[in-house]
This record gives sequence, C-alpha cells and structure tokens, in this order.
Amino acid sequence: MVSAGTLSPETRLLRIDEVFELEHGEQLPGVEVAWRSWGTLNPRGDNAILICHALTGSADADDWWPGLIGEGRALDPARHFIVCSNVLGGCYGTSGPLHPHPEDGEPWGSRFPQFTIRDMVRLQAQLLDHLGVRRLQLVLGPSLGGMQVLEWAASFPARVGAIAPIGVSGRHSAWCIGISESQRQAIYADPDWRGGRYPVGQGPVRGLSVARMFAMCSYRSRENFQQRFGRSRQPDTELFSVESYLRYQGRKLVERFDANTYVRLTQAMDSHDLARGRGAYEAVLGSLVLPSLVVSVDSDILYPPCEQEELARHLPNARYRQLQTSAGHDGFLIETGVLNAMLDEFLTEVCGQGVPAAGQPSPRQAG
Amino acid sequence: MVSAGTLSPETRLLRIDEVFELEHGEQLPGVEVAWRSWGTLNPRGDNAILICHALTGSADADDWWPGLIGEGRALDPARHFIVCSNVLGGCYGTSGPLHPHPEDGEPWGSRFPQFTIRDMVRLQAQLLDHLGVRRLQLVLGPSLGGMQVLEWAASFPARVGAIAPIGVSGRHSAWCIGISESQRQAIYADPDWRGGRYPVGQGPVRGLSVARMFAMCSYRSRENFQQRFGRSRQPDTELFSVESYLRYQGRKLVERFDANTYVRLTQAMDSHDLARGRGAYEAVLGSLVLPSLVVSVDSDILYPPCEQEELARHLPNARYRQLQTSAGHDGFLIETGVLNAMLDEFLTEVCGQGVPAAGQPSPRQAG
Repeated sequence: MVSAGTLSPETRLLRIDEVFELEHGEQLPGVEVAWRSWGTLNPRGDNAILICHALTGSADADDWWPGLIGEGRALDPARHFIVCSNVLGGCYGTSGPLHPHPEDGEPWGSRFPQFTIRDMVRLQAQLLDHLGVRRLQLVLGPSLGGMQVLEWAASFPARVGAIAPIGVSGRHSAWCIGISESQRQAIYADPDWRGGRYPVGQGPVRGLSVARMFAMCSYRSRENFQQRFGRSRQPDTELFSVESYLRYQGRKLVERFDANTYVRLTQAMDSHDLARGRGAYEAVLGSLVLPSLVVSVDSDILYPPCEQEELARHLPNARYRQLQTSAGHDGFLIETGVLNAMLDEFLTEVCGQGVPAAGQPSPRQAG
Repeated sequence: MVSAGTLSPETRLLRIDEVFELEHGEQLPGVEVAWRSWGTLNPRGDNAILICHALTGSADADDWWPGLIGEGRALDPARHFIVCSNVLGGCYGTSGPLHPHPEDGEPWGSRFPQFTIRDMVRLQAQLLDHLGVRRLQLVLGPSLGGMQVLEWAASFPARVGAIAPIGVSGRHSAWCIGISESQRQAIYADPDWRGGRYPVGQGPVRGLSVARMFAMCSYRSRENFQQRFGRSRQPDTELFSVESYLRYQGRKLVERFDANTYVRLTQAMDSHDLARGRGAYEAVLGSLVLPSLVVSVDSDILYPPCEQEELARHLPNARYRQLQTSAGHDGFLIETGVLNAMLDEFLTEVCGQGVPAAGQPSPRQAG
C-alpha cells in the first residue's frame, strides 16, 4: 500500500524560503515545490513545455498521462524541456495540507489556507525562474490542469507561446461546484474528518472514498459504464460489477490521497474564474491572443463540449478539436494516441516542428 | 418540522393480513398499504387510473405531481377513479423499514428484506382487488414510478389498458446503479447508520443528506444549475448559491425521509430489469402490445432519451414524446402543463375522452 503523498524517486524538491503571498492575502512562510523534467533546456531557455496536472495528479506526468512524452511523441525530450510540478496545495511533495506547519511541525491539515488557480500558477512561475526557463513554448493540461493553462495565458501573457486547455471551462460552472460540494460534504460527514484535524494516516477514508465514487461517475459516462459493466454481477458477492468497480476506485484513492488536500483543491477549482478582477469574461478571453488548441471530449458531462466551444469562440487565435470517445471527462487520459497527434500538429503549426519560430517576441519576466 | 413518514390526513390504510411473499422468497407476515383516490369507481370497475410515484414520493399524487389531477385536467375525477399508493418498502404508510417488526414491535429497519419492482406491483394489485378495480385504463408514473408502470404491463397484461412510462428505462443501467451505490455508501459511511439499526429519529442524517445532494445533481442538469445559480454567492455566508441550495435540499429530505427506506428503494430500482426470468429483453418489450405513451425529458442525464427511444422502438404500440426543458430528469415534475396535454391527447386517443372504448377485452384477475 502506497501512503498518501508518496513521491516517485525521480521527483525533485525546490525549497523557496521567501514568503509566498496568496491571492486572498494569507501568507505561507516559505514553500516547497515538487517537480520533474524530461529533456534539456536550451541556452536561450525557450524550449520549455509545462504540463499542468488534474485533481489527484502529481509531477509524474509520464505516469498519469502516458503516451505524450517520449521519442517521436508530441512532447519529445530530444527537442523540448518538459516540466511538470505538483500543484500548490497538492499532496505529492508541494506545500499543502500534508506539509508540516512551521509553528508546531504537525501537518497543516485544514489550517492550510484556501488558495486559487492563480496561486498555483504563480508558484509554477517561481519554479520556472529557478530552472532558468524564460519562455514556455506551450502550457497544456486537462481539467484542473486546463484551469492553470488558461491562467498562465492571462497571468503571464509574455511568457507563454501557446496553450492547450483540455476538458475545461473559463470559469467553474454551478454544476461543477455542486458536484464538488457534494463530495466535500461526504468527507465532512465522516467522523474521522474531525474538522480537518485528523492525525496523518487516520483520516476520513470512508468519506473520501464516497467522494471518489461519486467523482468517478462524473468522470465517466452512461455509455462507458454500460459498455463495461451493463447489469453484470460479481460471481462471488452478487454485487453489480459497477458497484464493485466504484468501491475499488474509492479504496484505491484513499490509499494515495489526502482528504484535506481533496477539499482544498476542489475549492480552488470552484474559485476558477478567468474574469475575476479582470473585467468582462468575453473581453478577458478576447485578450488572450496567443495560439490556443482547445480540446473537448464529446461525452464529457462534467465540462461538456459547450464549455470548450465557448472558449474557442472567444479566444481570438483558437483551434478547436474534439476527442470522440464514450469515456467521458476522463477521455483525455484514455484517448492519448489521438490527443498526441492533435498536440503534435499544433506544435508543428505554432513552433515549426517544436523549434520556436524566429521573430517571436523576446521573452520577459512577468508577474 | 415534519418527521419521516408523516401521513397526509387524506391517506387511507389497507391492512392485508395474509402473508406477502416477495420475489426473492422472503415472506412478510401481513402488509399495510397507504393509498389515496380521487373520483369514483364506475359500476364496471374499469374507469381506474393508477399513478406510481418516484423514489421519495407518497400516495399524495396531487401534492408531488401538481397540475395533472383535477377538473378539465388529463386525470379528471369526474371521469376517472384515480388511485395512488405508497410503494412497498416506502416510508409514507405502506409496510417498510419504518414499520414495526411483528416480533419485537421495533422498526424493521435494515431487517426489512430486499424487494423488487415486481413486489411493489403485486402489492398494488392487491390494493386494487380490495377497491374493486377490475381494469386499469392507464398506469402512469415517472422514474421509479415508470419502472412500476412497465412491470404492470408485463405482470398483468390483461388488467391494463394503456401505460405511460416517463423518464425511465426497461432495465436499470450500470450508470444509474453506480450513482445509486455512491449514494448508499454515503449513508453507510455515517456512523449513525449503525448497520441500519438506528433508533427512529436518530438515523444517519448527514449521510442521507449527502446522498440527496448527489441525487439532486443527477436529477437536474448543467444548464439548469447554470441558469439558476451561475457563480452567484450567498451574501451572508460567501457560499456559492448552488452549495447553499444543495445543503438545503439535503436538510429538507432528512426531515421527511428514512435512510433504510432510501437504501431499500434504491436497491429495488437497481433490481429493475423487465426481462429478468422472462426471456430476451427485446422480445419481452415486443410482447407488451398495449398502447403506450413513452415520455422523455431531453436534458435528462440519469435516464437519458436514448433509453426511452429504446423502449418506444421495441414496444409495438408506442407513441414517443419528449419534454423540452433544461430541468433535467426532474423535468417531469416541472413541465406538468405540457405533460398534462400529452396525457390528455393519449387518453382521448386510446379511451375516447377517458371513457373506455367498447369491445375491449373483458378483464380478468391476473397474478
């Protein structure tokens, strides 16, 4: 059994000793960022690609998003310097609820303040400063990762060459917030939640497991479940196969994830609104003039295609593509062959086979 | 505050002292049925219409399904004898987990055996025997009610003139089972669940409330939540309005419903399979030759239109209609004006203005 927050051997940690101020005003006295990279940064520091992960992901993009990174793939370490870091508030090495509080050495737990997608992105920018990355050829990511992608374009326009937001909207819908909140309430209803002040290893595993079961329903689709399970039953328990599958998914998550982290990350997702403090939503999207590849999954019920169509309609330099699969929202994790081809085509178009085109604006540090 | 199982003053109770044998073989030593009626049974006993209620409904069809019963409405007490009864295992008067166990007088609770849609329908048939109803002009109902409607046609073909299944499938999908099971797990995760052996009034209100929050998301739609709530917040708490709405819906249900009942009724829904023990699914539908009005809600994600299209394709004498609304599955409770018109047209067509056509096959007792 892997305990929550176990890091892969390849994960590296960057300690930043300065105070990190959050969008809402709270301050973290120093932060740590867990990151991984593939390939080599060129001397100009401009062949970098940033991958942003989804809710329960980590810096191990080659693990959770197989098929995109490698020789001959869209993200090729021979050409690109590919970076992925665990998000702020995550439980895979970056500062978050599992990290020790500076005052008592106990985990922050629910004392870890609420933060936003913009906070995640500013911390990633500090990591890239440290790594010497001046300019990103591409920022890409699905779901929560896609929120970061859009915030990168809005927060650091001069530093980003192109974006690929996948299975995401420009502002979290009431529907997604409702589904998030139902999951958080499942966690809160578990007596082991203790207001978020549970000892490590004794968290609300039942509540978190229920949250995951519900989430899995929203990540898939009716057709997907029907094809996989139908009305079949487990021979040993008489449970419907889909019940057994969901229980298994719940158990699997609680072995590797932390409940406070789940709460804070879903709250950050709910805070997602590109337009917050920036003016009219359409105008904000209209100001993101960089090339963008907006990708939908046709069977996504959580972030349905109408949301990506809206993005593509208002982003002035957008291409819109759709993954055709019954897999639902999680299609971006499954249809990686087609997605790889989409990304490859986009990178060739905007950077000329992954090499930055001459005459691009010179990079400057933003934010 | 209304406590779980409070009956309206109009509700009547029928006590049946014979053993009631369930499909799975368990026996209930006598049962009670809570029912209401509107209008008068004609001397031939063949102007009756049966309404079957959904998961948390009761015999009070004029309350939970307003706009369909009344003078000039599709279900008109001047012409029809309209009956609605609380389902077997329900908590509004019919025998179920809240009823006293004959051995110790304590509520059955989780000792109440699992039952099926067919058991519900057989109990309704006994009620109708008692009331002198020989033949039903129409059986109609939405969701769980629609499952009973279809089972009426399959179990008592000679006793039913026409059916109107609404927002339902012929067999519960893996998707619906998965969503049900996630909700049951939310109940089980509440320590007040105590394996279903909680004292009345001290049940797992947090777990049941979470289940209801999940369910409400599945009963509505993205567009519905977006139109109603968007990203608006409550001025007093800073909660998103949709969070506040869902919490309120959770609280409201636990005041009026029982957790063991919720578990048993959702299990009965999961058992729903018209073809169980009857042969090939398409052939079973093909054998239901009575006139049927199959109604979809276009925005239903729980029982999407493809499921009712399947019913209409295989039922040999089906009309297919769709409610156009962003309300989602619950559209059948909301678009009652349009639904009333659909039912009125159907009744006129199959019974000639609600009066049974001459020359119909003579009724016989079935089952």
